[in-house]
Amino acid sequence: MQDKWVDDLTVRRDSKIIFLIMDGLGGLPQAPDGLTELEMAHTPNLDTLVRNNTCGLLDPIAPGITPGSGPAHFALFGYDPVTNNVGRGLLSAAGLDFPMAENDLFIRANFASINQKGQITDRRAGRIDSDTNHRLCRKLKDRIRLLSGTEVFFETEKEHRALIVLRDEDLHEQITETDPQNTGMAPLAPEATDPAAVRTSVILKDLIEQAHRVLADEPKANMLLLRGYAKYRRFPSFEERYKLHAMAIASYPMYRGIARLLGMIIHPETKTIEDEIAALEASFSDYDFFFVHIKPTDSRGEDGNFSEKVKVIEAVDRLVPRIAALGADVLVVTGDHSTPSILKGHSWHPVPLLLAAKTCRLDRVEHFGERDCLTGGLGRMPMVDLMAVVLGHAGRLEKFGA
Amino acid sequence: MQDKWVDDLTVRRDSKIIFLIMDGLGGLPQAPDGLTELEMAHTPNLDTLVRNNTCGLLDPIAPGITPGSGPAHFALFGYDPVTNNVGRGLLSAAGLDFPMAENDLFIRANFASINQKGQITDRRAGRIDSDTNHRLCRKLKDRIRLLSGTEVFFETEKEHRALIVLRDEDLHEQITETDPQNTGMAPLAPEATDPAAVRTSVILKDLIEQAHRVLADEPKANMLLLRGYAKYRRFPSFEERYKLHAMAIASYPMYRGIARLLGMIIHPETKTIEDEIAALEASFSDYDFFFVHIKPTDSRGEDGNFSEKVKVIEAVDRLVPRIAALGADVLVVTGDHSTPSILKGHSWHPVPLLLAAKTCRLDRVEHFGERDCLTGGLGRMPMVDLMAVVLGHAGRLEKFGA
Repeated sequence: MQDKWVDDLTVRRDSKIIFLIMDGLGGLPQAPDGLTELEMAHTPNLDTLVRNNTCGLLDPIAPGITPGSGPAHFALFGYDPVTNNVGRGLLSAAGLDFPMAENDLFIRANFASINQKGQITDRRAGRIDSDTNHRLCRKLKDRIRLLSGTEVFFETEKEHRALIVLRDEDLHEQITETDPQNTGMAPLAPEATDPAAVRTSVILKDLIEQAHRVLADEPKANMLLLRGYAKYRRFPSFEERYKLHAMAIASYPMYRGIARLLGMIIHPETKTIEDEIAALEASFSDYDFFFVHIKPTDSRGEDGNFSEKVKVIEAVDRLVPRIAALGADVLVVTGDHSTPSILKGHSWHPVPLLLAAKTCRLDRVEHFGERDCLTGGLGRMPMVDLMAVVLGHAGRLEKFGA
Repeated sequence: MQDKWVDDLTVRRDSKIIFLIMDGLGGLPQAPDGLTELEMAHTPNLDTLVRNNTCGLLDPIAPGITPGSGPAHFALFGYDPVTNNVGRGLLSAAGLDFPMAENDLFIRANFASINQKGQITDRRAGRIDSDTNHRLCRKLKDRIRLLSGTEVFFETEKEHRALIVLRDEDLHEQITETDPQNTGMAPLAPEATDPAAVRTSVILKDLIEQAHRVLADEPKANMLLLRGYAKYRRFPSFEERYKLHAMAIASYPMYRGIARLLGMIIHPETKTIEDEIAALEASFSDYDFFFVHIKPTDSRGEDGNFSEKVKVIEAVDRLVPRIAALGADVLVVTGDHSTPSILKGHSWHPVPLLLAAKTCRLDRVEHFGERDCLTGGLGRMPMVDLMAVVLGHAGRLEKFGA
């Protein structure tokens, strides 16, 4: 779907599309002869959809490659995940709804603790609360005046995480990260990996030095660690590419950020999965495309908690009848990547896919699970191709050629 | 895996990888309702691995394309087989461990027989023995002095096959082959297919003429036929690309050659398949990656001998417990291409693949065979993508993007 010629086939229709994305949905069994989280979960409602529709498996980036959440979501939305692999700073800025400008450089920062020898003692400053973070961002904003005259913004993200924005001409993102990833070591210097970025690295060294002085009297958060450098970049929107008026229902800033970068309208924050489905119901008449993001499947996988991941899937299944009752022309249920709880992290394994549409060709799959999807009618395909398949089933793609 | 961005994700780990490559493994049934060689073979040990791991099918180059052994092995090792499709001369030179220099032009030569009318009577000079070949190469080396002053080497390969190396500035490989592929015809002239190669063609015509004179009194091998022109080329090594310290255990020169070009250490020649497995056991602690090449599956396929190909597969199966006992983190069992004995040659059919690793996601395949692998968990994929899948399962790839 990365190809311009596919976009040229899109047409405006009344049809509606829902993407129900269970983050990190794919899994592995706890013992070699066991079941995966999804296979174990009691999912009668998803199974009914499976029997009446079609399944498949998605490779988020390429076979064998473990994706971060950013690239995996770009692939889900039909944006080439390799050429669109942007620094996390940009996704954070979008997630915070920061008013971006053309030349901005976005940087993710962690507040950290260092001792008198300059060694890091806590890379997350004891996970300070967001209020402390707010106070520290204000203090930094008030007191730092960069020698270069570069404008600088400090924005609270959550706990120990913040966003730094530099606004100036001639800023570049080719800079090394300063987090050495281990305690007991000094922070690394932000060095240019490209000659063009040398001036940027000098500005950042000045920034870090001033920040260290401003934070010197803080009990925990007396240092900043920088990563995820990204220059401003504009992406063609869902409206421009697909003629889709899209809404995102997601509670985590990064996913809201990606959706905003792609021109989706962002629903106000919700608390629970059920709130998200209620938001979908309330907004259903106003948009063509809905991205509903379920985070806890991934979180429980990252925690290594097999049975809790199973429960999250079952909780989603109980809400499926409400989603199905909306009567979307295409309903996709999948994940952005696999997060097997036995690996406690993202993995390269392909992601189960269910596509429900009146126009789909049935297969013989009876249950929503990794092994079942192997024989699904959509086969195994690159995730980036999903969007074209969805638009096709929604009647939103014209014939190619005469 | 052809892409630089994948290489950038590789990390050094202690994990070990074995590639057990049965050359020409894939096959076809003798009758439409029969079994393939692999399906017919009694392979209890491979079947046990299959049940506890995952399978798939590999397309060596692209669907429908029959590969030579060179490109198929490049694909196995994650090197794009199309952009890395080098002339066979280079593979021969590497296989003979010829000390290559930057400007060398490598050429495969056959000794052939021609009659007094200049017509070829035997394209392989009655398959002269390697000792005769040695004597002829010395004779040619001693007596030929090219008019251009170009340095020339003659190296025995095996039977009627030799390697010629030209060493000079400004040599080019865009030259037509001189073997007309039929007896009763005169050898063709080596003509330039690119203006830059005209001087090279003049040098080669001089070479052929002098060789014909030097060999005039030979009873059988009185002519040289040239093919497989290739300029020297350097490839990024397994160490550079994958951070893998690799050993090749292969008895045929060409496979040793490819492995050497990719920076693998070459195990001294062995005689039998069992010797190869003993070599693997003896070297197992010293390397990260092992390429074990089994030639007879392909040879028996090329012979059109169905039952003997079955027996080779069964002989390998009996050695599988010794391989499995080594406890490699990833064990791959596959071929470089299919060689169905009913076709007596390579074919385009996809190649069965078994991948055994603790981190693999099980499928429902119970037997190692072409039809069984159709429902394998790895699906059907380009062979060039295998290496990334293997590195992923070996924990040797970092996450892509944040």
